[in-house]
Amino acid sequence: MRRFGQVIKLKSDMEERYKYLHANPWPEVNAMIHMCNIRNYSIFLKGGYLFAYFEYVGEDFEKDMEKMSQDPVTQRWWRETDPCQEAVDDAAEGEWWANMQEVYHLD
Amino acid sequence: MRRFGQVIKLKSDMEERYKYLHANPWPEVNAMIHMCNIRNYSIFLKGGYLFAYFEYVGEDFEKDMEKMSQDPVTQRWWRETDPCQEAVDDAAEGEWWANMQEVYHLD
Repeated sequence: MRRFGQVIKLKSDMEERYKYLHANPWPEVNAMIHMCNIRNYSIFLKGGYLFAYFEYVGEDFEKDMEKMSQDPVTQRWWRETDPCQEAVDDAAEGEWWANMQEVYHLD
Repeated sequence: MRRFGQVIKLKSDMEERYKYLHANPWPEVNAMIHMCNIRNYSIFLKGGYLFAYFEYVGEDFEKDMEKMSQDPVTQRWWRETDPCQEAVDDAAEGEWWANMQEVYHLD
């Protein structure tokens, strides 16, 4: 299992929209996330930053993310959520949600 | 079980010190965290922000946090780690690590 922490900015005028969408996630999107071997997935908000935590239980993360990105319903979902977000300034090339470095873990 | 997401700033000149401390956590500190009913505790770093995720499995979070704060070894640990950190601008009164709002969860 691999743990991920990721960060992205939330546009201040999109906060209510983003919260509404994530309080009412589309079942097909949730099912696809699960099918792509992601578990225990939470998103937290504070001060214009979104933080995501999840656990990846599959064998090939890049392949699973590619599968997710090809799903038509997920693509429609992202067309709703992407305009709410903005990559952090120091995101790596091509990153949307920026991966954070795990500096501590205790089971 | 209650999930927590928390955020705090890491001073740029303290990054290496913070990472060193958390790559070599004191066993007594880890034991106290566990005794205070915290599980699956991770800290992530990106762009000057630290994000913590953990799960609380006890019955009285405030009481357990009070117990932790009374532990002499934990107090010494915090004397090492606190100078590395700085509360975020919109932390609530009395908060050090600022609690974030959970806006999404999928098991």
